[in-house]
Formats: sequence, structure tokens, C-alpha cells
Amino acid sequence: MRLRYILGHCQLDSNGSVNAGIVEWRSELPHQLSAIGAQERMLTSTFLRCARQLPASPLPRLTTPTLSLPQHRLKSSSSSNGEKEKKPKIALLGSGTIGLSFAALHLTANPTCTVTIHDTRPDLYDYISSHLPSYILPGSACSATYKDRLTLAPTLAKAVEYADIVQEQGPENVKFKRTLWAEVEKHARSDALLWSSTSGIPASEQAAGMKDKKRLMVVHPYNPPHIMPLLEIVPSKETSQKNINRTVHYWRSLGRTPVVIKKECTGFVANRLAFALFREACSLVEQDVVSVKELDDIVTSSMGPRWSVAGPFKSYQAGGGEQGLEGFLSKIGGTVQGCWDASERDVKKGGISVGEGKEWQEKVCKQAQEEYGNVDTSERDARTRKVLQAAAAEKGEGK
Amino acid sequence: MRLRYILGHCQLDSNGSVNAGIVEWRSELPHQLSAIGAQERMLTSTFLRCARQLPASPLPRLTTPTLSLPQHRLKSSSSSNGEKEKKPKIALLGSGTIGLSFAALHLTANPTCTVTIHDTRPDLYDYISSHLPSYILPGSACSATYKDRLTLAPTLAKAVEYADIVQEQGPENVKFKRTLWAEVEKHARSDALLWSSTSGIPASEQAAGMKDKKRLMVVHPYNPPHIMPLLEIVPSKETSQKNINRTVHYWRSLGRTPVVIKKECTGFVANRLAFALFREACSLVEQDVVSVKELDDIVTSSMGPRWSVAGPFKSYQAGGGEQGLEGFLSKIGGTVQGCWDASERDVKKGGISVGEGKEWQEKVCKQAQEEYGNVDTSERDARTRKVLQAAAAEKGEGK
Repeated sequence: MRLRYILGHCQLDSNGSVNAGIVEWRSELPHQLSAIGAQERMLTSTFLRCARQLPASPLPRLTTPTLSLPQHRLKSSSSSNGEKEKKPKIALLGSGTIGLSFAALHLTANPTCTVTIHDTRPDLYDYISSHLPSYILPGSACSATYKDRLTLAPTLAKAVEYADIVQEQGPENVKFKRTLWAEVEKHARSDALLWSSTSGIPASEQAAGMKDKKRLMVVHPYNPPHIMPLLEIVPSKETSQKNINRTVHYWRSLGRTPVVIKKECTGFVANRLAFALFREACSLVEQDVVSVKELDDIVTSSMGPRWSVAGPFKSYQAGGGEQGLEGFLSKIGGTVQGCWDASERDVKKGGISVGEGKEWQEKVCKQAQEEYGNVDTSERDARTRKVLQAAAAEKGEGK
Repeated sequence: MRLRYILGHCQLDSNGSVNAGIVEWRSELPHQLSAIGAQERMLTSTFLRCARQLPASPLPRLTTPTLSLPQHRLKSSSSSNGEKEKKPKIALLGSGTIGLSFAALHLTANPTCTVTIHDTRPDLYDYISSHLPSYILPGSACSATYKDRLTLAPTLAKAVEYADIVQEQGPENVKFKRTLWAEVEKHARSDALLWSSTSGIPASEQAAGMKDKKRLMVVHPYNPPHIMPLLEIVPSKETSQKNINRTVHYWRSLGRTPVVIKKECTGFVANRLAFALFREACSLVEQDVVSVKELDDIVTSSMGPRWSVAGPFKSYQAGGGEQGLEGFLSKIGGTVQGCWDASERDVKKGGISVGEGKEWQEKVCKQAQEEYGNVDTSERDARTRKVLQAAAAEKGEGK
């Protein structure tokens, strides 16, 4: 009998049979697969068994290059101590827009890393093949070779087994995250960093069911992470300083801007700030002071560009001249307080809290829909990258 | 007797004598002065009288080119109807940092305009000569010739006499502004646009003593106006639509972003938004969630660049995918409301209101001073210009 090898995404269902998106036949075992260990060979044999049940030919061939499966341990990075970041193996759990964006970021900004994606969706291979390329920045160093370092894993256990970093972007649900981390803990290395992309569930809550809580922290991106430099690192009280440092070091080595949030607070920091301004924006539109479009024009032609270069504190420190922020507050503190008082009053009067059927909410949503409809984020992202380059240019930074 | 002509800044004191910063002797009357009318000649003769009382020579010569005085009516733009904007004569009352920045903006972005500055400071000529050049953007079209179109006026009456636009940036004091506009009204043309740069005193309050309130409106810049594109146009209920349109048209023709604010509200819009975020920033630093520097890093690596390209409404419209802002609020409205509730609670608990001796205020001011000291705004402004160019590049806009 002539052996045929099959490569592609699959999921092992509860009976142990393969629920596969078969993508490619090969008559020879690819190089990567010859280097794999015993466990991987077992999985391969599952594939082979499955393959034999399929018609011999023809099978559809995808035009995109093969995403090799299962994931395998790279010989050069098998050491489990020292600097994992050199050739880190990253497991991504969940492949929504944030997962894809992180995959693109790791693969292109870190040319030595390997990435394994696990997701329960049955069409994972097709989905990744068709969606991931749009996240790969044109001209990025690794845009031609990133696929060689990407693997899809059929199970969570396989995905995290050898990972230096396990990063989850699953549903925003405490119970889900707790179950996930307990499962990850069973299969991952004891020194793997565990990162959650949650925008709201603190690590301390997620870790409730874990034995070792030192490795888990929130790594909250500002979407999309393959474009925006910020990563809010939010450890729990149990997270070790060493693991925080490793995390910060990893992101800095990729030219990103990790900021450690010192206390687990509602919404972390970036969203707290942005939503505070957003509430005021909704209030002003509710009052018909400006339209949604006019408000956006105000922001993009004033504080947006200013805050790309200097944050609010540095800006007002400059605004106060030689006396700095203190001088600023002593000179125009009355105006500042006047605005704060007016904001409170107007927010209360306009009932600016979230809820279906709220009048203000229907008004701003209607205006936003009429003005913008379906926003072309690729055009926005291309311009954002240029803005980031311009803001960084004279600092001599590459972020 | 050999006539000597004197050029420079002067102020006529209450006795009608000249309190002059004499800057240059000339043995011939410059070309511009030969073209002036009777009133200007009278003033010139006052100068000449004054000059005769001064020692014949030597007198200090400035190395900067002459700023001609008094201002004169340009022959080519003497028509008082139709498109004033073609060769507008602009009178700036007040020469603080905003006045200088506006002077630089008009002179370099509008190559046909003439600018007359009036200020009561006795060293006006020296002050303008030494400070204005730093506001002229390198490489701007008119950077070589702007001085030829700049005049200093000895009195408010002379400054505004032929002006198409009178723009004030005097002290933030209602009484001062009322007196100023009443005086301007006596001397300015009846169709001159009257603009206040105030950051807080509505046109309706400023206009209390005026006969014709149709022409007065707030034109509030985001500092510094020679860099930042935004101009908040805040008319009173008495301001005519025609004059609002003329104002918007002028700024658009200079490639700026004028936005008409539909209601006179406390702090207008840009400051309301910025201060709302600033309050939240102060609250988070007060709670030791992040430091002043970390907060700024968060903003410059996330919402700053994002909001250079798309304002908050467009951003969250995109965030909601096909359902837009409505989808965004229905999906993560709970998180948004959670942040709003936490903000309110924390601001109250931390006592985040402006006042001397407040603990939070001393904390943030101290951190800002230690972190930033004296901010180099020229470096910030150079980077901001690059950011604005980058943000505009793919929109095909030149602002």
C-alpha cells in the first residue's frame, strides 16, 4: 500500500475520531514532521488512519501555503530555563479578531517565534487561511515567511504543551476563563507565562481555580494589537514580579509599549480614560452642542495629534510654562473645575448611562450609523501606522 | 534741515507724546509709507517730531528687518464688500503666545494677508522681533517675506481702522472684553469680523455693551494655533449666519479645521472633552493605579494615535463591526457603564476637584514636575506637525 500523508487542520472529537478540514495530500512526509517526537507521531498516525478513509484523489488543494499540523517542538528552543524570549513558542487560545491580530504581531515582529493557534471552530484552517493574511502588515520583515512558523493545534493540550507563552482571547466570561486556565495548568509547562487578553476580568478572578497563580496576568491590548503599541499588563497580587518582568521584557523586545497597571481596577486604564471622554462626547451630542461628526473632527484636529506626542500630564505641564502643571492649575483651574461641574450636571440631566431604548443612545447611534456606516478599518489602520511612525520618528524610537 | 525718518514701535501716551521703541533711522521714506493716506501721514509727522528730539546719531540698528509702522491701507484690497478673504487685513489685539501664534499662522498660511498687531506693552517691537520668528514654521511658503506684511500699531484705533478681521487675545476678563469691543466698534469698519480667542467667556457676554452684535464670535484655538488645526467657532445667538460662514470660509481657505459649536456651553467642546479625560487621569494617579508618566505613555501609545485618525464615535462605530456603535454598546455596554460608575465613585472618593492644598493635586503636580520639568514645546510641536501630516496624508487633505 502506498502511504499518503495528510496535512491540515483537524479536531479530535469526543470519540477520538478526526473532524478534519483536510487541505493537502503529500506523498512524502515534510521535513518538519520528520523531526517530531513520539506524541506527535501518534497524532500523525491518527491523521493517516483518517486519510485512508478518504477518496484517493483528487482532493482540493488550497492555493495558500500549508499550515503544518500538528505543532512540534523546535530543536533550538527546547531548553526550559533561561531566556525563553529568544525563540519563544507561543500558544494562542482563541482566533477571533484579537487572536488573529496577536498572531500577526508575534509572527511578524518576532522573527524567531513560533505560534500555535487552537480554536474549537470546525473551519479553523480555512478561516485562518483566508483571514490572517489581512493582518500581516505589508513590508514587515517576516511577511513572506510567517506561515512557516505557524501551526494549528487540534486540542488545547497539544497547543500549550511546549509553549513558553499561553495567551487566551476567549469569551469574556469568568467561568469560561477559570475552566480554561485550570485546563491549561494541567498541560502547560510550569514556567509558561499565562496571559489573558480580557478587557475586564481581572487575573485574580480568572485564577480562582488555579494551583499556581504566579504566572497569570492580564495583557490587555488596545485594538488591534498588531497596529497599536499599548499593552496594559495587569497582574494580580499573586503574580510574581519575575513573571511581570519577563512579560514586559518580551513586549519591549518587540518594540511595543507595555505598561504595568499597579492595581486591578475596573476597566484598567486605557478604557477608563477613553470612556470618560466618550461619556462627555455623548453628553455634548445629546445636548446638540455638536454632531457626532463634528465632535470627531474636533478630536482628530486637536487632542488626538497632541496626545500622540505628549500625554495629558505632559501637555498641561507644558501649558503652565515654567510653573508646570501647578501653574496651569493655578491659572486656569477655575475653567477646569467649571468644565467638570458642567459635565457632571449635563451627564445627569441627559441621563447618559448605557441602556437599551435610552434617548441619548438612540440619537448618537443613529448619527454614527448615518455618518460612518461600515468603517473601513484597513484605511484607518494604514493611517494610524503612519501617525505612529511620525510620532516616534524624532524620539529615535522604532515603535 | 536734513529730514530723518524713523520707523519702529511706539505708543502715544495720554498727552499725545510718543513713548517709542525707536528702532531705525532712514534718510528716505520707505516705499510703503509713501503710499499712505492723510491720517497715517499725521502719525508719521508725530514720529518725525519725536525723532528730532533724539540724538542725531548713532542710534541702535536692529539686525532683524524693519517692521514698518504705522499700518497702511493696501491699495489692492480697499474694497469693503465682496470677498474680504482675498487680501484680508487682520488686526490682532494682544501679543501673548496666542497672539504671536495667530500672527505666524495668518502670515505664513495666507500669503496675501497683512497683519497689524496692537499691544500696550512698551517693548512691543523688541518683543515681537525676538519672539515671533520662533513661531514661523521652517519651510513654510512665506517664511522669508512675512515681515513685509506685518505692522505694529500704536493704538487700538489705528490697528482696527481698516481691518477685515479683528481678533483679540487679551486678558480673560469679561469687563476687559466688553470695554475692548465697545472701543473696537467705534473704530472698525462696520463689516469687520470680530473674533475672540477666549477659552471661556461666551460671545454673548462679551457683546453686552455693543451696538452691533452680529459680527462677534469666539474663535477658540487649540494651542498653539500655528500648529494645531482646530478652531472652535462659537457664535452667540446674535451672531449672523453670514458672518459665521465668512469665518468658516476663511479658516478652511487656510487649510484649518473650523468647527461651529451650536450652543454656547461652558468650556466649549475640546476642553470639555480633554478635561473629562484629564479628571479621570488625575483620579487614577491619585489611586496609585499608574504614575503620571505611565498614564501619558498609555495615552500616547493608544488613544492619541487612534484619535488622530478617527474620533471616538468613528472608532466605536468601527468597534461594533457591522452593527456599528449600537452593536458596540450592546456588546460591551456593561463594561462601559462599569467604567463610568467606577469613575464617578473614585473621583468622589479621591476628592478630585481643583483647589490649592488638595492632596491629589500636590501629588500629580509633584510627579509631573519631577518627570518633565520644563517641557521643550518646540520638539513637541515639530513631532505634532509630522503626526498631522501623516494623519492627513492618505485622506488627500493638506491640513
